[in-house]
Amino acid sequence: MSMTTQMMQSMSKEMAGMPAAMDMSVIQECIEACAACEQACTMCADAGMSGGMVKCMSMCMNCADMCNTTMRVMMRPTGFDATSMTATLQACMAMCVACADECMDHAEMSETCRMCAQACQECAKACDAMLSMMKSMS
Amino acid sequence: MSMTTQMMQSMSKEMAGMPAAMDMSVIQECIEACAACEQACTMCADAGMSGGMVKCMSMCMNCADMCNTTMRVMMRPTGFDATSMTATLQACMAMCVACADECMDHAEMSETCRMCAQACQECAKACDAMLSMMKSMS
Amino acid sequence: MSMTTQMMQSMSKEMAGMPAAMDMSVIQECIEACAACEQACTMCADAGMSGGMVKCMSMCMNCADMCNTTMRVMMRPTGFDATSMTATLQACMAMCVACADECMDHAEMSETCRMCAQACQECAKACDAMLSMMKSMS
Amino acid sequence: MSMTTQMMQSMSKEMAGMPAAMDMSVIQECIEACAACEQACTMCADAGMSGGMVKCMSMCMNCADMCNTTMRVMMRPTGFDATSMTATLQACMAMCVACADECMDHAEMSETCRMCAQACQECAKACDAMLSMMKSMS
Repeated sequence: MSMTTQMMQSMSKEMAGMPAAMDMSVIQECIEACAACEQACTMCADAGMSGGMVKCMSMCMNCADMCNTTMRVMMRPTGFDATSMTATLQACMAMCVACADECMDHAEMSETCRMCAQACQECAKACDAMLSMMKSMS
Repeated sequence: MSMTTQMMQSMSKEMAGMPAAMDMSVIQECIEACAACEQACTMCADAGMSGGMVKCMSMCMNCADMCNTTMRVMMRPTGFDATSMTATLQACMAMCVACADECMDHAEMSETCRMCAQACQECAKACDAMLSMMKSMS
Repeated sequence: MSMTTQMMQSMSKEMAGMPAAMDMSVIQECIEACAACEQACTMCADAGMSGGMVKCMSMCMNCADMCNTTMRVMMRPTGFDATSMTATLQACMAMCVACADECMDHAEMSETCRMCAQACQECAKACDAMLSMMKSMS
Repeated sequence: MSMTTQMMQSMSKEMAGMPAAMDMSVIQECIEACAACEQACTMCADAGMSGGMVKCMSMCMNCADMCNTTMRVMMRPTGFDATSMTATLQACMAMCVACADECMDHAEMSETCRMCAQACQECAKACDAMLSMMKSMS
């Protein structure tokens, strides 16, 4: 069990911000997917520059920033607000889908883009799972 | 005219990422509102801690991160994608509305909260203006 | 007087984190220079991609992130720590100097790079003024 | 092997930004320590708010932002600049040491603080290893 997971569990006992019905494993998976996607996109934006893939890199920078913000929002149960968290997850999912599509176009030329597209797809899926869980709670 | 405005105009001539129909002044206003709101929320999160306003501070941290991401997305015309920018602006607006509501509850006790609530309201309004413009283009 | 300035002054009365001897106008100038430099570098990183200026863009992304972090650290008087703030300002100054040098090499070809180099130089200067003030206090 | 590690290795073959003498495993460890420390500090800043640990939380917000910036700088070999990377690592180390000291004071009261202090110490150690490696190369 990672330290982040341990801290999430320790926090979920201590504080009342986030609804108790939240499945911690879904949140943890989404946090990890966001972190991985931020890292993949940051590297892809830097690597892609040598190949003239300008749209891809610009989207990767957007996606890295959005994934970092979404990860942090999930890590702050004290300020939990269902409406704004839902909108944040939807924005993150939209960004990951757009970035995955763009990176996929270069997947055969660039191993970096292929791995980045995969990280984006996994993050979009994890955001979708969070959204389903939140919808079932409301 | 600020340097950011000058750079936006210089960029809008050079590159084709963002649709030409975009009103630069609406984007500039939204960028400035996001930057101001990030700063207000960062300070409010730090100041509020002495008054035990825990939900307010956590929301301010979320709002600061989201405003920074939204500002950066608007500053990257190369990777412009209408769907994900719309979702980003909606998330930023939702976060600013939630944060303004929370800060407004402490506005009489704390001048910092009152000014932060105002920055959040102005940012929500600027995001709304961006969304209207984007809708009229699609 | 900007809202950020008003909030800084309102906070400096309320809380004891930052030493009273700090000249608020030096901090405010450095905060504004960091914010302007983050915006210039974010746009330059996006614009430069069309010209194949890969080192410049990568440095601009670094500089944007560092300026944002430095700005936020200055906006959190509650957690003020002289040693780590000094190191942060030194890192921000080093990054701005390196980025200004790189951008200056393309200043004749690109108006975006020229304005970005200027924002970096101004930010390096503002960090230097902060460092001088902090040294005089210790 | 994590995806980030795979991407780092794939990038290190492709591009010439970072010196070949760099030991990739030292960089990877430092990237992972920064990512873990950003997550721990983000959660600690949110959790600590219920206990009135105001200095701790403000420092954790600083440390989270600095760790994220340092991680991203290491993930951008294209813009590698030894001077500014050294200053960035020094700032990150100073911030982690200060934050660990503060969190350690609350370690007996708060499990979150204890785990955060540990993440900060590990990150400071990983930055130190990076600095040693860079010094040996110059």
